[in-house]
Amino acid sequence: MKTAIIGLGLIGGSMAIDLRKAGLATRLVGVEKNPDHANRALELGLVDKVTTLEDAVAQADLVITAIPVNAINGVLIKVLDRLSESAIAIDTGSTKSMICKAIENHARRSQFVAAHPLAGTENSGPDAAFSGLFFQKTNIICEKERSSDKALVLAGQIFAALQMRTIFMDPVEHDKHVAYVSHLSHVSAFLLGQTVLDIEKDEKNIFNLAGSGFASTVRLAKSSPDMWAPIFEQNAEYLSQALLEYIMHLQKFQYHLMKRDVKELHRIMTGANHIRKVLEGLDVKEKPKQLAENKT
Amino acid sequence: MKTAIIGLGLIGGSMAIDLRKAGLATRLVGVEKNPDHANRALELGLVDKVTTLEDAVAQADLVITAIPVNAINGVLIKVLDRLSESAIAIDTGSTKSMICKAIENHARRSQFVAAHPLAGTENSGPDAAFSGLFFQKTNIICEKERSSDKALVLAGQIFAALQMRTIFMDPVEHDKHVAYVSHLSHVSAFLLGQTVLDIEKDEKNIFNLAGSGFASTVRLAKSSPDMWAPIFEQNAEYLSQALLEYIMHLQKFQYHLMKRDVKELHRIMTGANHIRKVLEGLDVKEKPKQLAENKT
Repeated sequence: MKTAIIGLGLIGGSMAIDLRKAGLATRLVGVEKNPDHANRALELGLVDKVTTLEDAVAQADLVITAIPVNAINGVLIKVLDRLSESAIAIDTGSTKSMICKAIENHARRSQFVAAHPLAGTENSGPDAAFSGLFFQKTNIICEKERSSDKALVLAGQIFAALQMRTIFMDPVEHDKHVAYVSHLSHVSAFLLGQTVLDIEKDEKNIFNLAGSGFASTVRLAKSSPDMWAPIFEQNAEYLSQALLEYIMHLQKFQYHLMKRDVKELHRIMTGANHIRKVLEGLDVKEKPKQLAENKT
Repeated sequence: MKTAIIGLGLIGGSMAIDLRKAGLATRLVGVEKNPDHANRALELGLVDKVTTLEDAVAQADLVITAIPVNAINGVLIKVLDRLSESAIAIDTGSTKSMICKAIENHARRSQFVAAHPLAGTENSGPDAAFSGLFFQKTNIICEKERSSDKALVLAGQIFAALQMRTIFMDPVEHDKHVAYVSHLSHVSAFLLGQTVLDIEKDEKNIFNLAGSGFASTVRLAKSSPDMWAPIFEQNAEYLSQALLEYIMHLQKFQYHLMKRDVKELHRIMTGANHIRKVLEGLDVKEKPKQLAENKT
C-alpha cells in the first residue's frame, strides 16, 4: 500500500518502521517541514522519498498525519481536499475535540479516522523513532460513526499491525480522560523538574542525589515543549480542572504534614497505593494480536 | 567479617546479598521483627540465622541498621550500647538530622557511621531484595568528623563493595536536599496517583489509557506508607517547603494555561527541559570502583 506520512518524528517515524515491517506499507513517502529531520529520515530509511504534501497525498492509498496538534487542523483539511477517492487518512493527535470539529463537515470526512495511539517517549524527532513503540499499547478512535466501514477496517489493520488494542471514545470524553492520565503527568513532571532545578542551583547536587526514583518521576520533564504546549492549549479546560484537583491534594497533604498528622499521611498514601493494582493491568495478560497478514 | 543486619527488607536484604558476594560478609545474622519476613529471608538465604538484637550485635564485627526511620533512633541506641569495642555500626536511614542528634553523645559514637545509600525501588520486604540495587548509586555519609578513622575506612569498604560513590554532607544539608530530590518526588507521585484514582473511578479507563509516561511518573505511588510516613514526618519542615514551592509552580502554570498564554507555557517547559542535561550525569561516566578485594 502506498503510504504517505506527514511528520517524520517519533510517532510518524516509528509507524513507518513497523508498517513497512508488517508488509502493509510497500512504498513510503514522507512530508516534513524541518529539512534536517527530512534528511535524517531519509538517511535512517524511514521513508523512501520526502516530497510536498500535494505530491505525497495525490499518490497515496493511506495518509497518516503525525504532527503537533496546533498544526493538524490546517494540514488535515489540505489532506482531505487532495485525497483520492479510494484513499484513507488517519491522524495521531493527542487531543481530539478540536480536530474532529475542524473537519466535521468536510466532503471526505468518511475517509478519515480520528485516532490517538497512546504511545510515546520523552524523545522526539526521526532519531527517536523505533520499532515496537506501539506494541501492546492502547489506541483510541473517536467518532467512529463518522468514518466509513472501509476506513475503519483499514485503520483496524494498521493498528493491529502495530500490535495495538483499539478502543472507541467520544472526542470530549477522550480529551477529559487524557487530561488526567497523560497531560497531568507531563505537567507534574515538568514542574517537579522546575522546582528541583530552582532549589538545587548547584547541579552537582542533583547529580549526586538523584536516585532512580527521581529520574523516573521527572522523566517526562524532558519532553518537547513544541509538541506539548499546543496539546495543553487545546485541552486547557480539562487539564486545568485536573491540575486544580492535583493542587488540592498536594495542599491537603502539606497541611497534614505541618500538623505532623502521620496517621492521615499514612492513610492518603495507602489509598494511592491502589494505583499499583490498577497499573498491573498494564502488563497485558491478553494474547497479543498477530501481525496483520495483509500485504497490499 | 561477622555481619548483623537489622531489618531484612529491600535495603538490608540487598546489602546482605552483595556483601556476601563481595566476600566482605562471611557470616550473616539478621534481626527482623516481622516473623513472615524473617522466615522469608531465611528461605531466600539472605542471612544464615535470624536472632535477637542482643545476640546479633554481641557477636558482630559490623552491624547494619536498615529499618524505617521512626524506629532507627531507639534501635541504634540499643545497638551502640551492646557493640563490642572493635565493631562498627552503620545505618541507612533516609533522614539524618534526628538520627545524628539521637546518638550524638553516646560513648560509642565514633564507632558509628551515619549513612544514606540513595537506592531503592517502589517494592519492599525481603522478596524485593536483589543484587545490584546499589550499583553506581550515591551514598551520603553525614558527620564524618564524629566517626573514627577505622569506622570510616570500613564503611568505605562496604560502600565500595556495593559499587557506590560516597559523598559527605552535613545532616541538615542532607535533609534539605533529599526533601527536594527524593521526598518531593514521592509525594508528587502519591498524589498524582490519588488524583487520577479519584477521577477515573472506573479503573478500566486507567488500564486503557495509561501510557508508559503515566506509569513511569506514578511509579513511586506504589511505595510503602510504613516506610515513607516516618520519613516525611522527620523531614516535615523541608518537605513542606519543597511542596509549597512545587504547588506555587503548578498554580502559576495553571494560571497561564487558563489565560491560554502558550508562549509562557512553552518557556516554562523549555526551562524544565534543562533537567535532561542534569540527569544525564546519572549515566555515570566515571570508571566504576572495583569490587572490594578485602576478604575478612
